[in-house]
Amino acid sequence: MAGNTFGQLFRVTTFGESHGGCVGCVVDGCPPNIEITEDEIQKEMDRRKPGQSEITSPRKEEDEIKILSGVFEGKTTGTPILMLAYNKDMRPEDYDHLKDVYRPSHADFTYEKKYGIRDFRGSGRASARETLARVAAGAIAKKYLKDKLGIEILSYVSRVGEIGSEIEMNSVAMKDIESNIIRCPDSDAAKKMIELVEKMRDEGDSIGGVITAVIKNVPAGLGEPVFDKLNADLGKAMLSINAVKGFEIGSGFEGAKIPGSKHNDEFIMKDGKIRTKTNNSGGVMGGISSGETIYFKVVFKSVSTIKKKQNSVSRDMEEVELEASGRHDPCVLPRAVPIVDAMAALTIMDHYLRHKAQNL
Amino acid sequence: MAGNTFGQLFRVTTFGESHGGCVGCVVDGCPPNIEITEDEIQKEMDRRKPGQSEITSPRKEEDEIKILSGVFEGKTTGTPILMLAYNKDMRPEDYDHLKDVYRPSHADFTYEKKYGIRDFRGSGRASARETLARVAAGAIAKKYLKDKLGIEILSYVSRVGEIGSEIEMNSVAMKDIESNIIRCPDSDAAKKMIELVEKMRDEGDSIGGVITAVIKNVPAGLGEPVFDKLNADLGKAMLSINAVKGFEIGSGFEGAKIPGSKHNDEFIMKDGKIRTKTNNSGGVMGGISSGETIYFKVVFKSVSTIKKKQNSVSRDMEEVELEASGRHDPCVLPRAVPIVDAMAALTIMDHYLRHKAQNL
Amino acid sequence: MAGNTFGQLFRVTTFGESHGGCVGCVVDGCPPNIEITEDEIQKEMDRRKPGQSEITSPRKEEDEIKILSGVFEGKTTGTPILMLAYNKDMRPEDYDHLKDVYRPSHADFTYEKKYGIRDFRGSGRASARETLARVAAGAIAKKYLKDKLGIEILSYVSRVGEIGSEIEMNSVAMKDIESNIIRCPDSDAAKKMIELVEKMRDEGDSIGGVITAVIKNVPAGLGEPVFDKLNADLGKAMLSINAVKGFEIGSGFEGAKIPGSKHNDEFIMKDGKIRTKTNNSGGVMGGISSGETIYFKVVFKSVSTIKKKQNSVSRDMEEVELEASGRHDPCVLPRAVPIVDAMAALTIMDHYLRHKAQNL
Amino acid sequence: MAGNTFGQLFRVTTFGESHGGCVGCVVDGCPPNIEITEDEIQKEMDRRKPGQSEITSPRKEEDEIKILSGVFEGKTTGTPILMLAYNKDMRPEDYDHLKDVYRPSHADFTYEKKYGIRDFRGSGRASARETLARVAAGAIAKKYLKDKLGIEILSYVSRVGEIGSEIEMNSVAMKDIESNIIRCPDSDAAKKMIELVEKMRDEGDSIGGVITAVIKNVPAGLGEPVFDKLNADLGKAMLSINAVKGFEIGSGFEGAKIPGSKHNDEFIMKDGKIRTKTNNSGGVMGGISSGETIYFKVVFKSVSTIKKKQNSVSRDMEEVELEASGRHDPCVLPRAVPIVDAMAALTIMDHYLRHKAQNL
Repeated sequence: MAGNTFGQLFRVTTFGESHGGCVGCVVDGCPPNIEITEDEIQKEMDRRKPGQSEITSPRKEEDEIKILSGVFEGKTTGTPILMLAYNKDMRPEDYDHLKDVYRPSHADFTYEKKYGIRDFRGSGRASARETLARVAAGAIAKKYLKDKLGIEILSYVSRVGEIGSEIEMNSVAMKDIESNIIRCPDSDAAKKMIELVEKMRDEGDSIGGVITAVIKNVPAGLGEPVFDKLNADLGKAMLSINAVKGFEIGSGFEGAKIPGSKHNDEFIMKDGKIRTKTNNSGGVMGGISSGETIYFKVVFKSVSTIKKKQNSVSRDMEEVELEASGRHDPCVLPRAVPIVDAMAALTIMDHYLRHKAQNL
Repeated sequence: MAGNTFGQLFRVTTFGESHGGCVGCVVDGCPPNIEITEDEIQKEMDRRKPGQSEITSPRKEEDEIKILSGVFEGKTTGTPILMLAYNKDMRPEDYDHLKDVYRPSHADFTYEKKYGIRDFRGSGRASARETLARVAAGAIAKKYLKDKLGIEILSYVSRVGEIGSEIEMNSVAMKDIESNIIRCPDSDAAKKMIELVEKMRDEGDSIGGVITAVIKNVPAGLGEPVFDKLNADLGKAMLSINAVKGFEIGSGFEGAKIPGSKHNDEFIMKDGKIRTKTNNSGGVMGGISSGETIYFKVVFKSVSTIKKKQNSVSRDMEEVELEASGRHDPCVLPRAVPIVDAMAALTIMDHYLRHKAQNL
Repeated sequence: MAGNTFGQLFRVTTFGESHGGCVGCVVDGCPPNIEITEDEIQKEMDRRKPGQSEITSPRKEEDEIKILSGVFEGKTTGTPILMLAYNKDMRPEDYDHLKDVYRPSHADFTYEKKYGIRDFRGSGRASARETLARVAAGAIAKKYLKDKLGIEILSYVSRVGEIGSEIEMNSVAMKDIESNIIRCPDSDAAKKMIELVEKMRDEGDSIGGVITAVIKNVPAGLGEPVFDKLNADLGKAMLSINAVKGFEIGSGFEGAKIPGSKHNDEFIMKDGKIRTKTNNSGGVMGGISSGETIYFKVVFKSVSTIKKKQNSVSRDMEEVELEASGRHDPCVLPRAVPIVDAMAALTIMDHYLRHKAQNL
Repeated sequence: MAGNTFGQLFRVTTFGESHGGCVGCVVDGCPPNIEITEDEIQKEMDRRKPGQSEITSPRKEEDEIKILSGVFEGKTTGTPILMLAYNKDMRPEDYDHLKDVYRPSHADFTYEKKYGIRDFRGSGRASARETLARVAAGAIAKKYLKDKLGIEILSYVSRVGEIGSEIEMNSVAMKDIESNIIRCPDSDAAKKMIELVEKMRDEGDSIGGVITAVIKNVPAGLGEPVFDKLNADLGKAMLSINAVKGFEIGSGFEGAKIPGSKHNDEFIMKDGKIRTKTNNSGGVMGGISSGETIYFKVVFKSVSTIKKKQNSVSRDMEEVELEASGRHDPCVLPRAVPIVDAMAALTIMDHYLRHKAQNL
């Protein structure tokens, strides 16, 4: 209710501030008897952690995940799974100068307006560090979906600033995504994107971009009419990630320009199955998965924390000049890829359990 | 849980199929002592109803709203409000030919995959007729927000097909929106949009577009970290509307191209208040309203129901040819405007109550 | 959230006041393809309706149930089921004298304190008439449980005032319960109970009692640790019925006197199955069904509405004398039996779906 | 949904097994700016911890509570509060012999039936150790209720086995409750109760009893019709505590014997306020608090874990003989008092926020 829980049946509640004791989550409603280890989860964590390349934040957080309940002899037991990473390499003194000032486009001002109090150290609860908990929870969902249903989730960077990629989404494999530090499977575009990010980093500035997500082998029937359409819940999941400003599924914003006679996905018979000829719907019809590949785009704005001087206002309503001194990412996109993966996995997992409850 | 309820505290549960007994909703959690009449609600209903102009469906549904509980002597009592419109002018025989065939890009196929059964008359539960219940519930929320908090919600058509409008959002007033049948306050663009829709109608085709929503006077502090960010819940609300394929808030997809140093909304003092110089954030920072105007765009695909011949497949996996015979809209945009209004109102209302519970 | 919804997955939201337009419910999350008719539901309704015998309220409400959505060609479709009974035989003028006065032990005072407004006609929302909606929803759950899982629910009156019944619960059949107007399968006790109720009716007074519920064939595994134990949710379900003041499961209040060595239910092998020798647990261990018969007791206080003179206080804080003029039950027990059945069915049904979602 | 969360707005999710890494909870939805320290919470923890007297389990758990998030500079921030106690003094080897056998009246059998897997060390998730998390969360609620609303919660042991206490509930003060190790404010009865428990302990047996709870100064208006009546939610809260088999509020089971004319609580004027002459309702009318003192009774069965020999069955369906070797309580009542306090506090707190959201 206070917004820290995602999902109805596969429920993930995250907790923790960037400079408190830890960041983590409780996963409730996880099916029992799933084999899972800290190592498997750590692999996903490592894709998100800072300091993984020269274009990410130089912070040295290891984000070492610990499972403290709900797993017994290597298997989930159906009871709540507590996972957390203790906070280390904290430099709260880095943030003392932010105690009384609101950073532009951050949550400083709005948290204070909401609660009348805020933990100002490293953005506190609003820190993107919170997303490590999502990645941990998502790793369990991802494993279940893969092993039980053959569902594969692949996200990658398809645009940075003005630099787009021309790659065909169906040809993308995980190894291509992981082949470079920007996580764009189009190696030519990747090179240019990295250059742009480096330029931004060197200028003390930041830049945004787009992540494309592709989800294969989702069975037909997932998603709930009318408010909890699969596309609506995927959209919410993505829009809940820090810095995301937009979401489109299937033909998206461009699709509105195409007349219905061309946009409609006609049904055809293929290999003895009912399929669609095109997939402008993005794998979802009437809010329910059609069995076709689900794909969507998520847009991230440029990171708010920059090293350039900015004007702002203090709590005392004094105009002030602000210079960031923390260690930040010039572009969140490469580290956001596993977060998009995770949120997609959590959404599909939750809808699978919801579908099962009523229908299977 | 089965997807028919919107909101956590101001909870709207809709029910009804397009050719069953009625369509309506239960509103639970509505504050008591709000003055409300069927007439006030009917005004919003009339903006959505079919047959309101030559570019909407010629169906003659009056969509007459009835309040059957929860209102006593003209005031809400705090108990559940049942509102419904009985179905009239039904021609279920229009749909007999659809009993065993899946219309392209409709919910026919996916509902059947999900439930193993579907009410095939007029799309059943997946019919856009369901949205009349949202408009009814939204009318109550809209009134509360206006009267108690001074919040104003204005949505309008800003693009149809390729035809965009150049109007400045802050200058738009309700009377401008209602001044023409396409509900675009830019009268020059409106004329071209209407022509395009008429062309589509005459060709038996359909076209999509974009609705821009503007919400003024939302106090700072609404929205819940971390999953139920105000933008995430607005996004979900919009993506739950039939035919919506995308959502962007503030600078949206274009904003990703702008470096942080230019994109950040610097705080300034203005008229003794802390404000932002720009509003690329779209009125939401860190998922919480900042007090600036909230604005976002919602993209609708072209309507799936067209009169042109299409290919499809039957339940028996036979390939068939399909020709629509119902009475449908060539473009849903003008009738979708009050739905966007309603979903925005429901989202803000719910977040206001949530904020109040924890903070006020 | 505002308390009008029961269940997590099989969700029943009731609405309506006793003298408004109607009373009814929306059932959301019902599995598709259950065959159900208005007639089947009406049978349960008739067990609850007033005027069914000389010891119930002489009101002539027919409580005719209508299904307005969610059922197509005689089967549930998985979409929300709207059921309602329009209010007839209303005599709102009977309640004019209650507009400004608080009846002892009624909800008049507390509703007004809570909401600042109340529908004073016939207790409004607090009327026991609301329970007809529960019975309608319960009828669907009951059918599903019986047909799919072989679960049988039997409730009966086991005490009225001081008059108890000595019947052995395992021997009770539905026909015994329905064999007399007090719904006590022990015919000797029934006779005395009826006499007592008649005496109370003639004196313009009222009396309470106990209903025992027996649920057979519940499979082991239903119920959720730790807060949503099956016994906790059954208890809540029962305590939510008007006039209920207590609940005990298994050995209940008396069981606390028995040492653990005698109270513990030892496991034994029986017919090739793991069973327990005794069943002091009442069919639930650690909050989860054990496969043994579930049984519990529900106590109802004497009805608050009586014809005898009473003292009270008006809204203006004046002391007043009060004489009831409505048509009321001297003892709610016989009409409460189907309500206990219904709430038990709704609880088991919901827990079955919850169990299925995570485990099956 | 999987039963590990209590409350709608003040949401407590507990996690942890008795012999895993830790036991604790996340409290979400807590109002900001409440001053709270680990020491204050520890005081409540100490009332529940084992080894506190010669009549409780001799286990030496310190149950040292740690706050790891959501509190900043001594105040709640409105974000999730993570609290936990690391498990120490674990002797998992004590439980090896229970790996393949089901203890009578424990959750061993039912957990395995439900999940197909169970953590057999010390009852795992079903251990009463889970309740330490409730006490921690309850301590925050208790403080808020006391400081903001003046609400006082007092629970005490009113019966052990056959030994009851005659004390008048309105005269009970916290110091009386804490004046002896059984937590019965009636010192004569307390002496006899302690003797009985010692006898049971010495015989390797166990015994149950009743806790009475008294809640003073709850404002009128808390509780939600119709399913979430305050008494229904209090009942559920209590029935969710391990070993609880029954609940009654106000006049309870005995009240059913009193005719309405005597049972009804007449309204009177007292000190310029509307009050009731009697309080058979137990402080709740129509499911909503009346402003009178709330009181109810909770019955606990005798503890299932005893040292006496018992018969049981193994996973392989072999009949076995069982002798407990762990360190257990002969009577849970004294340690359950703070748990009843905590669950009462959580229920009232949650309903206060719910009331505030819709009405204040």
